[in-house]
Formats: sequence, structure tokens, C-alpha cells
Amino acid sequence: MTASTTPAALLVLTTTDAADKADALARGAVEARLAACAQISGPVTSVYRWEGAVETAAEWQVFLKTTDERYEALESWLREAHDYETPEIIATPVTRGSAAYLAWVAAETTA
Amino acid sequence: MTASTTPAALLVLTTTDAADKADALARGAVEARLAACAQISGPVTSVYRWEGAVETAAEWQVFLKTTDERYEALESWLREAHDYETPEIIATPVTRGSAAYLAWVAAETTA
Amino acid sequence: MTASTTPAALLVLTTTDAADKADALARGAVEARLAACAQISGPVTSVYRWEGAVETAAEWQVFLKTTDERYEALESWLREAHDYETPEIIATPVTRGSAAYLAWVAAETTA
Repeated sequence: MTASTTPAALLVLTTTDAADKADALARGAVEARLAACAQISGPVTSVYRWEGAVETAAEWQVFLKTTDERYEALESWLREAHDYETPEIIATPVTRGSAAYLAWVAAETTA
Repeated sequence: MTASTTPAALLVLTTTDAADKADALARGAVEARLAACAQISGPVTSVYRWEGAVETAAEWQVFLKTTDERYEALESWLREAHDYETPEIIATPVTRGSAAYLAWVAAETTA
Repeated sequence: MTASTTPAALLVLTTTDAADKADALARGAVEARLAACAQISGPVTSVYRWEGAVETAAEWQVFLKTTDERYEALESWLREAHDYETPEIIATPVTRGSAAYLAWVAAETTA
């Protein structure tokens, strides 16, 4: 594989407040071929401001791997599937990576 | 919201050696509006070289969400609040994300 | 230190299916000066498609810190040391960070 054929990928991060909800988000995104795979990490402690006070809550992080091309469809799906009003959905670029792994991500997210 | 108004955000990562120190860093940064929110994950196993030997230690990771604009103030605050001589403070760019969530990050970090 | 001397760094992520394998990957990369340090987080729940069905498995995430310059050598080493046929090896750029910490990453990965 030449560098020019390596697909651009993204590491997408969302969080939710229960293990089974994190599992449903990860499983649903992979099932729909919107992400090649996902890891669920948790419980983690979330710290945020709510009505003027700093609060903490248990959450689960979901790390999803997808391509640039599929990002918008994944984000739309996550917003719909998530039960938060304004869920965290952020993506950082994958600028280096195993060519074989990136090719697998692209293949797994091709409908 | 148009794409041009979406604020540029950063995912900032630091680590420390106790859960209560991680909590204080996360809470303090959110309290000071230097980060919109944070997640604490741990204990994780840190592996590093110390005086020639590879050592392991329990640490806690803190993932903070802020804007480009607030990064320098957040880094200065973390360096001051942290009790390591050279703490890990690194940031990766958020190049895609939910516009509503990114707007919330910007609003929460506006003094 | 001026901004121009701050080395470009990467946050590299791999996953494996046992804590001792994650430890060996982290320790071996630091031992070989291919990464300055690593954090192992797990067990996490991995979700992926296998032979048409969505499966879950326990995995451990390894977060490695290195420089752009050492990335290719680190990736080669990880591919060799890993027992998966197509391991996840992805890297996101560190675009901001503590100058002292980034200098330490560069020093620790200099042979």
C-alpha cells in the first residue's frame, strides 16, 4: 500500500452515564458500519459545571474509530441514539497509523 | 450555527499519582472556567524510565476539554497546581465535533 | 525554550487482549527508547465485527508518547512485538503541550 491510498481516519470520543448505554452506542455504530470498532472505558469520573456548581458523576467513555468520510453519518447517528440533550461528540485526527489497520477501518465502514 | 462559528477545541491530557489529586486538578480547572469539563480515568499503569531503569506506577489520567483560546491559561494553571516537577500536559486538536457541544465548551470557558 | 525548538510529538494508541501483553508492549517500547512513557488502561470493552457478527472482548489500551521522528521505528517495533495479525496502531498529533514535558519526551526517545 502506498501512502497516498491510506485513508484518513478519526478517533471519535463520546461519553454516557451507564455501561449498557455505552455498549448500545458502540454496538449500534459498529452494526451500522459507521465505526470499525469501539472501546468502552469506565466508569470514569466526570467533572462539569451544572447550574453554577461543579458536579461529579460516573460516566463511560466510548472511543470509536472511523474514517473522515463516515464522520458526519456517525455524528448524526450518535446524536440520535444518545439520550443527552448535548452529548459530547469530539474527534481528533489520526495522522499516522498502521497502513493495514487503517485499511481495515476503511473496509469495515464501507456500506 | 454555521461551520465558521464553531470554536476550535482541544482535548488536553495530564496524569497524576493519586485519585484525589486528579479530582483537584479536574475540579479546579472547571471551577476557574479553564476547561468546560474533565474525565478522570484510573488507576492506569504508567511505564517510564527513571535513573536508567524502566519503572511502573499507578496514575490517574485527566482528559480536559477546552478551547484554543483558553489553552495557555489552562496549561499555566495546571503547571502551578500540579505537584510533579515536569507534569505531562499535552493537547490534541478537536477537528470535528458536535457543533452544539463545541459551543457549550466555548460558553463554559468564557470568563 | 522558544516555541521553534519544541519537538513535535504524537500520542500513539494500541490495544491488546491481556494485561501482561500490554505491559510488555509498554515496557519494551520505553526500554528501546521508542516511547518516552506509556499508560495502560484496562480492561476496556472492545466492540468489533467478526465474520459478520458484532462481538465484544476485554482489551487493554496502551497510550504511548513519542516524537514524530521516532514514530516509524515505534510502529515497526509494535507490529513485530504484537501478536495480533492487524493490531490497532494509530497516532494523533500533539499540537500544544508543556515545553518542558515535550523536551523530556524528545530526550527520552533519543538513542
